Amino acid sequence: MADAPRDIEALIEIMARLPGLGPRSARRAVLQLIKKRGALMRPLAETMARVAETARECLNCGNIGTADLCPICSDDRRANGLICVVEDVADLWAMERSGVFKGRYHVLGGTLSALDSIGPEELRIPRLLSRLEPEGVTEVILALNASIAGLTTAHYLAAQLEGRVSVTTLAQGVPIGGELDYLDDGTITTALNARKPV
Amino acid sequence: MADAPRDIEALIEIMARLPGLGPRSARRAVLQLIKKRGALMRPLAETMARVAETARECLNCGNIGTADLCPICSDDRRANGLICVVEDVADLWAMERSGVFKGRYHVLGGTLSALDSIGPEELRIPRLLSRLEPEGVTEVILALNASIAGLTTAHYLAAQLEGRVSVTTLAQGVPIGGELDYLDDGTITTALNARKPV
Repeated sequence: MADAPRDIEALIEIMARLPGLGPRSARRAVLQLIKKRGALMRPLAETMARVAETARECLNCGNIGTADLCPICSDDRRANGLICVVEDVADLWAMERSGVFKGRYHVLGGTLSALDSIGPEELRIPRLLSRLEPEGVTEVILALNASIAGLTTAHYLAAQLEGRVSVTTLAQGVPIGGELDYLDDGTITTALNARKPV
Repeated sequence: MADAPRDIEALIEIMARLPGLGPRSARRAVLQLIKKRGALMRPLAETMARVAETARECLNCGNIGTADLCPICSDDRRANGLICVVEDVADLWAMERSGVFKGRYHVLGGTLSALDSIGPEELRIPRLLSRLEPEGVTEVILALNASIAGLTTAHYLAAQLEGRVSVTTLAQGVPIGGELDYLDDGTITTALNARKPV
């Protein structure tokens, strides 16, 4: 990039650090932005600056909002005694898109990992435990990813919550529209073991 | 995204319009940005705003710079009578990374396309022709992509330039490190027809 002006080079370098973009796609994205300065780049820069100022984590659940409490935690209609525990805000968004869950969330911010020295304190687990009584929680739904790390964390959480509230997890099985031929053995085994009468 | 604040939703929507990012990766990128507000998001927003203000197309060649003339067009050492014609600024950057070419460029900004009604005027072709005399051009290197549209445009340009300067194109053949097994038939045919004594 010997001849891209310094700011453009810097822009490409920062963009390349976003997940899903490498150096090559960052260059393409920056060129696209420059071509559409008025319609794309200025609004993007302004929105980004605004979000950088206003976005913050909900003190209660870890969701992202613009106030101390996120819209879900400040909505009394969602205090139905259910808390859905997710790893990440992206998972919360995915759950919300389905539109089925009417309770509140708790965003761990990752999974337990001895290797990366991520313990319960790093994952807002004490915060989760402290929410049970004041929010009258009756059931905690563990909606962690079905990875080894997710399962380990779910196991740890289940042990912590045992006896205080009922603990459930999402059902595992064949995804809607899933083709058996493309599923891994573990999913097929789980789906077979949990088979239901038609 | 029922519960992402409006600015964050807007940010995701704009990011999803960048090449290489879809809605899902835009969401991931935005979450990453919010997590790293200080180190990533603020610098990105600031650099982007600055580039949106300063970046402009070189009036001579169409390269992107911060002045009326890009660094290459304002560098007298690069006036060696050679002009390399590329489709896009990304191609110019790719040529510059190789570091071999010491002449100047001409960025067409696309390829001729009757379907999209992109004619010579839209591609800075008159501008290219008007550069030949004042810059003492002796050779025009057509470095267009080896696609049908690129080849058509190269053919048109060659006809326009014939008799005024010598016209060359990049050699075609097996790329360095390329494995025959993965190459398309056209490339193999071209490489075979243009075979050279060892």
